[in-house]
Amino acid sequence: MKIGVIGCGLIGGSMVMDLKAKGWTDRVYGVDANERHADSARAYGFIDEVTDLDHIAELTDVILLAIPVQAIQTVLPVLLDQLNDEQVVIDMGSTKAAICEHIKTHPRRKQYVAAHPIAGTENTGPSAAHEGLFKDKVNIICDRERTGAHAMDVAASMFRALGMKTVFMDAAEHDRHIAYVSHLSHISSFMLGHTVLEIEKDEKSIFNMAGSGFQSTVRLAMSSPDMWTPIFMQNAQNVTNALDEYIDHLVQFRKLLNEGDREGLQELLLRANQIRRILKK
Amino acid sequence: MKIGVIGCGLIGGSMVMDLKAKGWTDRVYGVDANERHADSARAYGFIDEVTDLDHIAELTDVILLAIPVQAIQTVLPVLLDQLNDEQVVIDMGSTKAAICEHIKTHPRRKQYVAAHPIAGTENTGPSAAHEGLFKDKVNIICDRERTGAHAMDVAASMFRALGMKTVFMDAAEHDRHIAYVSHLSHISSFMLGHTVLEIEKDEKSIFNMAGSGFQSTVRLAMSSPDMWTPIFMQNAQNVTNALDEYIDHLVQFRKLLNEGDREGLQELLLRANQIRRILKK
Repeated sequence: MKIGVIGCGLIGGSMVMDLKAKGWTDRVYGVDANERHADSARAYGFIDEVTDLDHIAELTDVILLAIPVQAIQTVLPVLLDQLNDEQVVIDMGSTKAAICEHIKTHPRRKQYVAAHPIAGTENTGPSAAHEGLFKDKVNIICDRERTGAHAMDVAASMFRALGMKTVFMDAAEHDRHIAYVSHLSHISSFMLGHTVLEIEKDEKSIFNMAGSGFQSTVRLAMSSPDMWTPIFMQNAQNVTNALDEYIDHLVQFRKLLNEGDREGLQELLLRANQIRRILKK
Repeated sequence: MKIGVIGCGLIGGSMVMDLKAKGWTDRVYGVDANERHADSARAYGFIDEVTDLDHIAELTDVILLAIPVQAIQTVLPVLLDQLNDEQVVIDMGSTKAAICEHIKTHPRRKQYVAAHPIAGTENTGPSAAHEGLFKDKVNIICDRERTGAHAMDVAASMFRALGMKTVFMDAAEHDRHIAYVSHLSHISSFMLGHTVLEIEKDEKSIFNMAGSGFQSTVRLAMSSPDMWTPIFMQNAQNVTNALDEYIDHLVQFRKLLNEGDREGLQELLLRANQIRRILKK
């Protein structure tokens, strides 16, 4: 199987690295808007050859799109136009509804798989790619009924080779849910980082007071703005709903605190504690 | 050296465990409001004998207070009343100003050390105690000028034995800074957990969509309400200031998102990214 990977960063790079190791592919062609990233990816050895958007379709059987979501929306229809009947395109974007809507009526829609492998770190670029990133993680495929049997077989085989468990979901439902369990986490962390940095301007050297708790909550604030700005914008309505509820809860906390309502606060924290039952199972 | 530890949970337990291993103490007496915790601590072997608040002073040289901050405020003056001239009390609370103010004029103030070792996890109780929790972490001692030379020597020796680096700070300054780098992180995480749990009531099974990013940001939501409610209340003014700035930044994010201001959003995330320069050094 010859793979083309568009975007040779954390996601695309880690993916082809494992697919090579598993023998799922014997040749990987890479495209990256950043020329140095493409060269690094070849130097690291997880792509065999650098190519470009005009040539990737004629060289490969499967094309992986691991680029920011607004770029997926632009590139995907152009790629689909170039496919023969057997080729498959799979995207890895963190939003699905806008992309699926955008190519809904494309004559080669059946050759596209709308995927979201739930894995990542706060780091970016080819140097962040590493083996085993996807192992035992969940992959979501959206609007499966719009994908043909051949493309679905290829995708199923590929995600299995990565050690992932695939679940199926409607694209709109995916975007609504992921706003809470991923996009909101990122916003809370980005804004926590921003808040503490603003204070640091006046209050020097507070960071030697930061423990592992702060590091854990603020880790996602190091994520790539190039990747996350388009995600938030493509999922603006769901993200706004989640954010409004989050702000409401923070305001509720503030109110209880300022009323000196110890029992009310304790009760609120106890309810939040229930997250343990989810995370520890 | 005979140690008394009041509160045999994560902090107190981990502390005496290491102090025993280092040979800094040859006998540890434990007190816990929860009888089963005291028994567990003895069963685990990190305390040698269970005692109570009325007897701990007559049995020990150094007493460690590792209980919720409002309990520290209640117990500390009673303990100080019972000390002979050589004994030392060290507290581990996450707020310092109210406690220091409370015992400011006590005749044995010089025998008290106001400490805050910056270490912990989201877990609680004797079963959460473990070796090496404090190694290479920062300890803060507040209002050092109010502590006498002997008590300070004992504390310095003890925190050194734990492998900690001690820095000194004014109690009010400590509370103002820690509101940002610790207390606010906990609120952001508690309320994130709460928000996502509220949604889960209507939207089942969203948690298999939660990746490592969500787990990292929501980890602190599993922290103990018994410990954290009093911390937030004792540091209410500073916590409110930090929370207000955090909410302002979330509202600012929401505004840019809803205006479709891609550049503004990107700029905001880039500023938050600067947290990397702090955390990675």
